[in-house]
Amino acid sequence: MAEMTRVALDAMGGDNAPVEMVKGAVDAVNKEQNVTVLLVGIEEIVREELGKYSYDKERIQVVGATEVIETAEPPVNAIRKKKDSSIVVGMKLVKKGEADAFVSAGSSGAILVGGQTLVGRIKGIERPPLAPLIPTAKGVSLLIDCGANVDARPSHLVQFAKMGSIYMEHVVGVENPKVAIVNIGAEEEKGNALVKETFPLLKEQTDINFTGSIEARNIPYGDADVIVSEAFAGNIILKLYEGLGAVLVSKIKDGMMTSTRSKLGALLVKPALKETLKAFDATEYGGAPLLGLRGLVVKTHGSAKAKEVCNSIIQCITFKEQKINDKIMECIQTESRSDE
Amino acid sequence: MAEMTRVALDAMGGDNAPVEMVKGAVDAVNKEQNVTVLLVGIEEIVREELGKYSYDKERIQVVGATEVIETAEPPVNAIRKKKDSSIVVGMKLVKKGEADAFVSAGSSGAILVGGQTLVGRIKGIERPPLAPLIPTAKGVSLLIDCGANVDARPSHLVQFAKMGSIYMEHVVGVENPKVAIVNIGAEEEKGNALVKETFPLLKEQTDINFTGSIEARNIPYGDADVIVSEAFAGNIILKLYEGLGAVLVSKIKDGMMTSTRSKLGALLVKPALKETLKAFDATEYGGAPLLGLRGLVVKTHGSAKAKEVCNSIIQCITFKEQKINDKIMECIQTESRSDE
Repeated sequence: MAEMTRVALDAMGGDNAPVEMVKGAVDAVNKEQNVTVLLVGIEEIVREELGKYSYDKERIQVVGATEVIETAEPPVNAIRKKKDSSIVVGMKLVKKGEADAFVSAGSSGAILVGGQTLVGRIKGIERPPLAPLIPTAKGVSLLIDCGANVDARPSHLVQFAKMGSIYMEHVVGVENPKVAIVNIGAEEEKGNALVKETFPLLKEQTDINFTGSIEARNIPYGDADVIVSEAFAGNIILKLYEGLGAVLVSKIKDGMMTSTRSKLGALLVKPALKETLKAFDATEYGGAPLLGLRGLVVKTHGSAKAKEVCNSIIQCITFKEQKINDKIMECIQTESRSDE
Repeated sequence: MAEMTRVALDAMGGDNAPVEMVKGAVDAVNKEQNVTVLLVGIEEIVREELGKYSYDKERIQVVGATEVIETAEPPVNAIRKKKDSSIVVGMKLVKKGEADAFVSAGSSGAILVGGQTLVGRIKGIERPPLAPLIPTAKGVSLLIDCGANVDARPSHLVQFAKMGSIYMEHVVGVENPKVAIVNIGAEEEKGNALVKETFPLLKEQTDINFTGSIEARNIPYGDADVIVSEAFAGNIILKLYEGLGAVLVSKIKDGMMTSTRSKLGALLVKPALKETLKAFDATEYGGAPLLGLRGLVVKTHGSAKAKEVCNSIIQCITFKEQKINDKIMECIQTESRSDE
């Protein structure tokens, strides 16, 4: 395991760039031995920020990129025109084999488009899904796909199930992960046209532990490890998780401030509550991998701070060491062969 | 406003039937003057339960129905075969004009099928949507459709928007309600095929206050009053609301029990917290109407207790007094005329 993982990091992407990106990179190389980081961005700015830290100089390198893609830019255009942007330069490093992975907190759209067009898909993969980890009562589950491919077809969902299962088993370390499809009832005959078509296909797969449908109500309980969904519904699940969590917590905080008695109580429960809510904070678990690409692309939250950036970089080490892409290739090729 | 609203109540449906159903009926007639309740169910059981209460005998009547449709039964079959079930008998009372509304905590599937086949749609309504109120930081929003029609078409969603707007304005009392469509981004060009087709149609409507897309993240903040969605996504929103709320609250309670200090704090915050969480409890707001039918059908939670049953009955009074169905008819007919 002494082989180095080389991670290209978008130093300019996200709300807290470059400060938190650079700090995350430094934290990662200080924490892990087997990683080097290529900080991609406007050289002067990145070097100035980097100058504030002490770290192993051989393991952080700055790669110049003079442009920045903004979140509001139409992604296809941005990728095409801003050839010297941190996203395009970083992805090309992966394409050329100079980096194993690219991590960015920048424009989701540009990352999805760039992943497909610049890094490219593994042969046989129809659509690369975006697959964040979401917190549950039992730990985490992988939500796949949460926004990359709307109006997906059944065959896409089957590939999502397989890739998600490999990722949960070998990166997150869940043995024989339970795979379920998001549905509006537990029975096989329930669902929309897509789910009804996909369900029997998933049942046929021998290389995943398919457990059937999961209703959205049961997702937070952690009833499945890999939650398969078309991107529109997946995105709704992810966003509602964030929004509802935030609103409930703020309601509870307000509730505690309503009387002198409860204010005193709030002081006493605060530390314990903070710990609890941390376990339900998605940023603790690093970014969302875009799976099925020739290389790894990880999208972190736009609001990512150093901790999430650092966790995302460490995620890339496991991804490489566990040879996830070899495992995906193997599983997809078996599928193609059996189709012949 | 002295006219009576006659509500048929399924005394046998739901986890807590008949006890909580009968109690809910008694509470409603004791609370409101302008309502009579027809308790539909196995006569002996219902009468025995009813015997425990004192109420205006002229305003609660028992209507015998010897069969009960179970939640697990395939709905179409159940409606066809169990002709003397509480759901079929109750809906026929609405059909025959002997009741204005039917309220049930029983099988959702049977209620949806029965609503369409027994009560029947208002002329011009393509699909009747199920529309629960969900709690938000600002109050409540109407989620329409949350499970009646998967794989809906754009024209269905436009009708949902109109009916939802009428309901929010005249039953819930929100002036000029903001109508938004659930989407995976705020921009008009975002979305799946259905949303992209529906968006311009909603923009054209002059009788609703369409404000554009709403991301799932913003739903709990109450950014829209009427949340238009195809039933698959709507059902996910509703169920995730329930599941995530329950898991977060239980996590928080557990968190408070981790130390002596926090346990003491928990005692002090408990009453205030209880009040806060009550505001986020969907059962406070009565059941979900199935809109667009010739009469009103209301589905309450399977776990509904007397309070929700009583609130649902009261909801029916407002529905009738505000002549919601006349307003829906008028609005749909205007639409048909303008199409000519």
